[in-house]
Amino acid sequence: MQLALQNAQKGTGSTWTNPLVGAVIVKDQKVLATGYHHHFGGRHAEIDALKNLAKSTDAQGATMYVTLEPCSHFGKTPPCARTLVKAGISRVVIGQRDPNPLVAGKGIAILTAAGIAVQILGQTGGLNAAYNFFYEQHRPLVTLKYAMSLDGKINANAGVRSILTGEKAYADSQLLRRSNQAILIGEHTFKVDDPLLTVRQTVPEFEPLRIILVNDADEIDLRARLFKAKAPILLLSRRQTQRKWPAGVEVHTKSDWKPKQILNLLADKGIQSLLVEGGSRIQADFIAADVVEHLVVYVAPVIYGGGGLPAVFGTSAHRLAQYQLVDRKQLAQDTRFELRRN
Amino acid sequence: MQLALQNAQKGTGSTWTNPLVGAVIVKDQKVLATGYHHHFGGRHAEIDALKNLAKSTDAQGATMYVTLEPCSHFGKTPPCARTLVKAGISRVVIGQRDPNPLVAGKGIAILTAAGIAVQILGQTGGLNAAYNFFYEQHRPLVTLKYAMSLDGKINANAGVRSILTGEKAYADSQLLRRSNQAILIGEHTFKVDDPLLTVRQTVPEFEPLRIILVNDADEIDLRARLFKAKAPILLLSRRQTQRKWPAGVEVHTKSDWKPKQILNLLADKGIQSLLVEGGSRIQADFIAADVVEHLVVYVAPVIYGGGGLPAVFGTSAHRLAQYQLVDRKQLAQDTRFELRRN
Repeated sequence: MQLALQNAQKGTGSTWTNPLVGAVIVKDQKVLATGYHHHFGGRHAEIDALKNLAKSTDAQGATMYVTLEPCSHFGKTPPCARTLVKAGISRVVIGQRDPNPLVAGKGIAILTAAGIAVQILGQTGGLNAAYNFFYEQHRPLVTLKYAMSLDGKINANAGVRSILTGEKAYADSQLLRRSNQAILIGEHTFKVDDPLLTVRQTVPEFEPLRIILVNDADEIDLRARLFKAKAPILLLSRRQTQRKWPAGVEVHTKSDWKPKQILNLLADKGIQSLLVEGGSRIQADFIAADVVEHLVVYVAPVIYGGGGLPAVFGTSAHRLAQYQLVDRKQLAQDTRFELRRN
Repeated sequence: MQLALQNAQKGTGSTWTNPLVGAVIVKDQKVLATGYHHHFGGRHAEIDALKNLAKSTDAQGATMYVTLEPCSHFGKTPPCARTLVKAGISRVVIGQRDPNPLVAGKGIAILTAAGIAVQILGQTGGLNAAYNFFYEQHRPLVTLKYAMSLDGKINANAGVRSILTGEKAYADSQLLRRSNQAILIGEHTFKVDDPLLTVRQTVPEFEPLRIILVNDADEIDLRARLFKAKAPILLLSRRQTQRKWPAGVEVHTKSDWKPKQILNLLADKGIQSLLVEGGSRIQADFIAADVVEHLVVYVAPVIYGGGGLPAVFGTSAHRLAQYQLVDRKQLAQDTRFELRRN
């Protein structure tokens, strides 16, 4: 299974909303073939492993180790569970059940109905955190990210963009963008920072959806850098739009966008992971709504004083989620803290 | 000189407002004696070294290395410069001039007038930062200390005392109290925390002066823990007091206590170092007044959300002092950052 997990990771960054999956075919204590899900829409790990056999008849009587339950449905590819049956695999060891309701035990049912011995380890190996969370909780896994001074501020004066952190923290934050399927900011941050919200330094295959929460979509400046990049945009507006929007820009309207409503909309769109990048009121709203699973905070050794904008400010939480420090590291002058909900 | 500096440090914690000083007597490339200023009011390092000679005539023709200019005045002890002349020392190597106006070159003048060769290195060796600062800037050296959550808050809700940091950070903060001659907090912190403001875990020889900035001294609760400890108290009140105060409590009145006025009062009292321990408005006031030389910030891996009280809040600074990160270390779950003004 360890080898299957290692293979699964080879697909990192290319499977988009699909899970990372790895598979290994073993017979007579020998590894005959390995495979993984290479690419969104491409063949699944099990099929990849079968193709990698020296001859297809080698599968007969073999054991397959696969990190995720084989699928049972016709999606972009035919159901893997049936292919394993046809290939003559006699035993399947599965890392974890697939929480996706299209599969959810149906793959296992196909295997056992065909007389294949199935063992489920109940281990994710740390893979597919957002995928699993999404199908279990029916909303995207939310990561909050911000940089703050050593007195808890994001700038020296509200309305001024401050570059707090250094190059290493910047590069790290780009990796964070890359590993999320959507990025959300508020209107104030949009106006003050005029961000692209794309992934820089590396070219990802799938650009995250860029989401801006605005009061009135028709009042935002279309000359903003955001509209210059090709990645798709979702505007969450409190007022109806009259504008004709270019391709790639979608506008949704609701008089009051609460975090849970935003997450429901994204869940409907199949978005499994959301990176919230500020400003301070949106951070407070998401914390108060108790929907933050993961935080990444960069602390810069700078003092901004009493006039700066707090990193998290506004809505207070009735019940505070408890977090655990899972990583702390130095990025040159800055310190990166990573927390996960307990 | 290195040996003299090492000796000087032996007096740490016992010299109170006196500087740490070390001295070494050398002749024919041999160390004949070392000495240091042991204790506030006790003999000076030079005299201590002379006393440690095998016989007092050994001083004749010897070189003395001393970390600080020998004194020239009758204080609690007679002037050292004259004693060195009498002892027959022929050369004195001095780490740094004494910025105390009672000495300030007069010690050196006595030595050179007596024909002693004097060399001044202009090095403090990191000793006596507050002492030097006090005599150069005519105000106490201010250290700001606070603990905050990873979203920059000191509590989950204003008005509630939150214990943010762990034991190691607590022990560290007691060392900080011990190394300052006064501690200041505001009325809100006094009421919410009900602190003793004494040094715990070790018993210092000299308890810092405990200062509370209050609106009306006559309205504060005399049953507070503060009044149960023996260390002296200074109340800075905006209103005149009618109360009769117990011994050890001093009240000063001013309609508006600005940081610089507080520092002037403390300078008049000869206090060389002040630790400001909150709350958030006082921290902001001191930062804005540009009188903070040193910051110690403990960051706890906790999220308090948008309703918490920011660590630094209120008065904004027109001009922000630049700080340099001089130390960053892990204290169990907490992280300690130390900054010094550039």
